[in-house]
Amino acid sequence: MNVQKVAEVIVNYSTEVKEGDKVQINTSVLGIPLAEAIYELALEKGALPWVNISDERFEYLWFKKARESALTWFPTHKLQEIKNTDVWVGIRAPGNTRLLSSIAPDRISLYRKTMEKIVEHRVEKTRWVIINYPTNALAQEAEMSLEEYAEFWYRAVVQDWEKLSQEWKKIAEKLEKTDEVRILGERTDLSFSVKGRKPVVADGKYNLPDGEVFTSVVENSVEGEIYFDLPSTYAGKFAQGITLRFRKGKVIDADAEINKELVFSMLNTDPGARRIGEFGIGLNYRIKRPVKDILFDEKIGGTIHLAIGKSYSETLGKNKSAIHWDMIKDMRKEGEIYFDGELVFKKGRWLI
Amino acid sequence: MNVQKVAEVIVNYSTEVKEGDKVQINTSVLGIPLAEAIYELALEKGALPWVNISDERFEYLWFKKARESALTWFPTHKLQEIKNTDVWVGIRAPGNTRLLSSIAPDRISLYRKTMEKIVEHRVEKTRWVIINYPTNALAQEAEMSLEEYAEFWYRAVVQDWEKLSQEWKKIAEKLEKTDEVRILGERTDLSFSVKGRKPVVADGKYNLPDGEVFTSVVENSVEGEIYFDLPSTYAGKFAQGITLRFRKGKVIDADAEINKELVFSMLNTDPGARRIGEFGIGLNYRIKRPVKDILFDEKIGGTIHLAIGKSYSETLGKNKSAIHWDMIKDMRKEGEIYFDGELVFKKGRWLI
Repeated sequence: MNVQKVAEVIVNYSTEVKEGDKVQINTSVLGIPLAEAIYELALEKGALPWVNISDERFEYLWFKKARESALTWFPTHKLQEIKNTDVWVGIRAPGNTRLLSSIAPDRISLYRKTMEKIVEHRVEKTRWVIINYPTNALAQEAEMSLEEYAEFWYRAVVQDWEKLSQEWKKIAEKLEKTDEVRILGERTDLSFSVKGRKPVVADGKYNLPDGEVFTSVVENSVEGEIYFDLPSTYAGKFAQGITLRFRKGKVIDADAEINKELVFSMLNTDPGARRIGEFGIGLNYRIKRPVKDILFDEKIGGTIHLAIGKSYSETLGKNKSAIHWDMIKDMRKEGEIYFDGELVFKKGRWLI
Repeated sequence: MNVQKVAEVIVNYSTEVKEGDKVQINTSVLGIPLAEAIYELALEKGALPWVNISDERFEYLWFKKARESALTWFPTHKLQEIKNTDVWVGIRAPGNTRLLSSIAPDRISLYRKTMEKIVEHRVEKTRWVIINYPTNALAQEAEMSLEEYAEFWYRAVVQDWEKLSQEWKKIAEKLEKTDEVRILGERTDLSFSVKGRKPVVADGKYNLPDGEVFTSVVENSVEGEIYFDLPSTYAGKFAQGITLRFRKGKVIDADAEINKELVFSMLNTDPGARRIGEFGIGLNYRIKRPVKDILFDEKIGGTIHLAIGKSYSETLGKNKSAIHWDMIKDMRKEGEIYFDGELVFKKGRWLI
């Protein structure tokens, strides 16, 4: 595992750190080795880096014991800090992915709401990137040894992103000119319109690994049925073998092989949760199987995903919801995608 | 080692954390267990705690590689943070006390100067406390095993501070009414005036462990000679067996058994470095021998210390200098202290 090469991707490509940049690096204790390599590179460029180290035990105690007055207290100095930041690096290196299993979800969402303004400022005003750092907790979710996970992670992250980006732009350009998308596959025949929407190429600028073209859909246009064979994780829980049936853009029927309850409870969150917020295409062919981590799974080369719930403004999406849940379909065995009737994808490979 | 009891001293006694207090806890990675206990207690009191974790490798890289423009860059968000702080806890838990041995001292002092305003705000406007947490690096300096050091640390820190404070106040009150102090001991006969100066009782509010009464001296009044048998540390270096000879308050001659060069280089820092900034009395009788850490050594019960250089404003001291170097004398074998001719201390024990 060559941490140095990963740091170079982050500093030189993703965030393009330059002299004088104020660089905020966030990591949990286990991610310190990667933070160190990024910090050193930033210093060598004449930037102004600092590192915020967190430890999960404080996160757990916070959600377990903080009073409501604490969960709603806005730390103005953290807003000042993000306003004083040009480049923001977030390293996810959990010691335990199920840390918050026993915490009431409304406490977590209350605190998220308190901190919303800081996250918004980061997303809108800084050059930010989120990356994992291999830990046993992540390897365990992926059903790998730490060594296997680290190798897998490294190959998915260290790539020629500029070259890949050029290739993926062709798909995005073709998609932008398309009205109707049709998806055929195992137990699947789904159509929707993407007319007037803006496809985005996710090429390692904000996520590492990356590899995705995503857009929003015309909200009322979705018709048909789709079967998602890969596991869909949400906040430490997961469902699998989900089927959704649509009429006029709305989910009118659903089923799942594992955790049907989760699917229905999510669909019933709010009206927007029954509509599609995102259509995404996985393009990272070094990610070959799901690791129960959406940062990776939605990017598996040869898959597509739909998210129920909130759409992103950069795709010109209009759907609103408190949730955004990505569901992934493997298209490598028998999938086909048509853009306005033209076959553009077959069995995991793009024909564009 | 009962971290819980130590946290209770900090939260309940030293900083008196109460509901709504904004509590900034600073620690290096090795001190996280103590930070956790403090954090949990603060949460239970309805306070608003957060933890800043540091790692020495970033400190080293910063001093090694930061450009001058970085060392002089003032992080405004850190000033905002200390302004947003009611209670400040600093946990020292080094992995290596000699981390910065190879760094040019002027780089360290340049950066300290940059951050001065933040330190000043902390000292003047918050309820702050500094404490060690046992590490192998600290144990190594003390020539102990980690277990021995932890036991020693715990006994020095967890005490009935309110009761001790009442006892020590008697010494401070007597000292406040005193004009001339005379110190007799091995190779020592030193006199000075403390008239009009303000003795301070250091009773666990700002340092843990604590145990000291200190004051300033009338700058021109020091006459005679003193021999400091215990090691005197300064920024990772140390000297021992220091002799100072005074006339009209000024050091006119000096010697040392170990590291004479350091003594002379310190005395020559500036004119104030040849004058006494502090006279202190060590009162923590659970600290019995030096551990090469000034937080402990100056408090050894039955010792006295003088600092050359800067005096503290709360003692109404007037001496200015860039340095403040405490030198410690063991008075347990043959020391005597007289306040205006009255014997008040003999062989390590107070007669007040």
